[in-house]
Amino acid sequence: MTSVLESAFDRLWEPLLPIGRNAATSGYRRMAYSVADLGCREWFVAAAEERGLAVETDRNGNMWAWWTGPWGGPSGNDAFVIGSHLDSVREGGAYDGPLGVVSSLAAVEVLQSQGVVPRRPFAVAAFSDEEGARFGVACAGSRLAAGTLAPDAARALRDDDGTSMAEAMTSAGLDPGDVGPDVDRLRRIGAFVELHVEQGRALVDDGAPVGLASAIWPHGRYRLTFRGEANHAGTTAMADRRDPVQAWSRTALAADAAAREQHGRATFGRLEIDPNATNAIPSEVRAWLDARAGDEGTLAVLLEQIREAAFRSAQSSGTSVDLVVESESPAVQFDATLRGAVASALREPEGHDVPVLPTGAGHDAGILAGAGVPTAMLFVRNPTGVSHSPAEFAEQSDCLAGVQALVTVVQSLAC
Amino acid sequence: MTSVLESAFDRLWEPLLPIGRNAATSGYRRMAYSVADLGCREWFVAAAEERGLAVETDRNGNMWAWWTGPWGGPSGNDAFVIGSHLDSVREGGAYDGPLGVVSSLAAVEVLQSQGVVPRRPFAVAAFSDEEGARFGVACAGSRLAAGTLAPDAARALRDDDGTSMAEAMTSAGLDPGDVGPDVDRLRRIGAFVELHVEQGRALVDDGAPVGLASAIWPHGRYRLTFRGEANHAGTTAMADRRDPVQAWSRTALAADAAAREQHGRATFGRLEIDPNATNAIPSEVRAWLDARAGDEGTLAVLLEQIREAAFRSAQSSGTSVDLVVESESPAVQFDATLRGAVASALREPEGHDVPVLPTGAGHDAGILAGAGVPTAMLFVRNPTGVSHSPAEFAEQSDCLAGVQALVTVVQSLAC
Repeated sequence: MTSVLESAFDRLWEPLLPIGRNAATSGYRRMAYSVADLGCREWFVAAAEERGLAVETDRNGNMWAWWTGPWGGPSGNDAFVIGSHLDSVREGGAYDGPLGVVSSLAAVEVLQSQGVVPRRPFAVAAFSDEEGARFGVACAGSRLAAGTLAPDAARALRDDDGTSMAEAMTSAGLDPGDVGPDVDRLRRIGAFVELHVEQGRALVDDGAPVGLASAIWPHGRYRLTFRGEANHAGTTAMADRRDPVQAWSRTALAADAAAREQHGRATFGRLEIDPNATNAIPSEVRAWLDARAGDEGTLAVLLEQIREAAFRSAQSSGTSVDLVVESESPAVQFDATLRGAVASALREPEGHDVPVLPTGAGHDAGILAGAGVPTAMLFVRNPTGVSHSPAEFAEQSDCLAGVQALVTVVQSLAC
Repeated sequence: MTSVLESAFDRLWEPLLPIGRNAATSGYRRMAYSVADLGCREWFVAAAEERGLAVETDRNGNMWAWWTGPWGGPSGNDAFVIGSHLDSVREGGAYDGPLGVVSSLAAVEVLQSQGVVPRRPFAVAAFSDEEGARFGVACAGSRLAAGTLAPDAARALRDDDGTSMAEAMTSAGLDPGDVGPDVDRLRRIGAFVELHVEQGRALVDDGAPVGLASAIWPHGRYRLTFRGEANHAGTTAMADRRDPVQAWSRTALAADAAAREQHGRATFGRLEIDPNATNAIPSEVRAWLDARAGDEGTLAVLLEQIREAAFRSAQSSGTSVDLVVESESPAVQFDATLRGAVASALREPEGHDVPVLPTGAGHDAGILAGAGVPTAMLFVRNPTGVSHSPAEFAEQSDCLAGVQALVTVVQSLAC
């Protein structure tokens, strides 16, 4: 079996590797509707058609490669879909997204080689603009379908060059006038299973190549604005300063400590400083906090600890701070029935269960789950846990274990 | 006397106030060779000519308004010059620079009203591009004259819009081909006295409206690059992170503490983060340190403390750091003979001496002192100590005390 799996995987993986790769850094730039993204889409169409699947692109740019179906089935709501996305962050890795699409098509090929045919409508999906790296909204394709991103708002989003999503879609041959909720399509999906490279090291600790998601952590983004007083860096005595950099630095250290204490995450990844001049004490620091935790109660505690530290730090440095909620996403619990069925299918003969783990990252599977689609996620071990970076990696043998897991799940739940 | 002083000051100060003022913030934008700077230069020419002074603009854009002279005198090197600069930082205050030029012209008017004529060649100077706010090099006009800024390097400097200093000078009607050392001019100056608003609060503590500079502190600019590992903000456990923001924050707090301990200054006013995205742990933080202290030994100790903190902080967060010296300026001691003569002239009848204070800021007077010109500086009290900000301020009565001090000094040393 390994050799069929391996050759099916390799023949899909290899031609995708050069698309959108920055030779200088080995990082990928496959932002939505870019030349590289369109190259990935062409690859998807060709690979799916080679395997006898019929490809359609929906109104929101998501692609569906139907093996059986597209729709139909006795109740009209039992389509079984596997897949992930093809786009990347700026300077991302090769695995986040494509591993799930490649593994899904490889699983189809393996099942076909065994003469198996699904008894339900069955598709491999590649969702559009999952990373939001170009227009700033993650999971734009699935959010538009689910109705949680308004069409007008989406069309008006602009990238760093000022190109709107509407213009980008038009240049990619899509009709931006047509984007919007796709209620019928989602209603007809009886199960969606997304495979994804793990973006942490839980499976390393568990010693397992493949795991099953329990939930997506609740997640908030907050903008903290520290206001001090611009002044001369040379002449202003330390005691006379109202330096927002000091207040923010103290808050950044406190946020790190609080996240460790709450077993959550707190990150200050984005910062703006005014006037940002070497010889001026800044007047203002704007810092964006990304905070996540295992449940909503813990996230609230974490945020409160960081908020208190920010106000205390501001006070002690003669500055002020305000905190604005930019977005808050509730926890997503994956469908218990589908999760149970996937876990049963993957249970080893000796009775070992596949490890079950939560994830701190958002995914199209989370958006679909929020829209009522029964959804599950499989993770493939990542030896360093690094993601959104050229260093993102999974061992070939673990990738093949992921394909085998999909084969087993599809065989037992869809065939 | 007050009424002559006051009206002389006001008639110079008032017409200058609207030029380059941002009505929304009350901040000034009089960057070198901008429309606002040219407006200030026109004001200078008109005000000087009204008072019978002959204005020349030298090869480096510095302006000289001659009352007697221009050159000559028995030894050819005894010209007496007072003045300062007219340009501002972006969103600066009204006083830094213009107070010295206005006070100098007002002093001339007061002396003229008394029928006094200098016995030495005498000029009021307005130096070009002191702040370096547009092209990044402070004291560009005096540095070019002193030969410490190379003509080719100056011409090639570019502002944020990509305009070179050469292009900006051309558009201001100057010939950039002509910039360069002005050895003869500087050699002929027997004394330069610059009056400037204080940029700290030493005179508030001393309870005096006017003070005399002892020295300019040594000053260094350093670029610290903290390198970590880009990673996903949601999925990367706190313990698995190599976050350069943490290393830098710890360093920023340590720098502040070290500067307090050394009675020096340490400022992180400029920062760049890669990739600067809310949902990504940064891969790299570049932070610019501005450090100053009372003497070169203390500055070396301060820098060493910050360097050690940076390396310790980097190590404890799994990141690396390197520190590059961008510029280091030695201490400037103002001419002891001229300082003594100015102090004697300003000694009150009861024998009180004018307060003597060092400054943490660079000035054209420092550049001229470095080039061998006997130089002194007078400071006017600043109630908040705030500078390089719209909040910069001096009381009218203190400004008039500054004019009176210039009148006294010129009367006793040049007339």
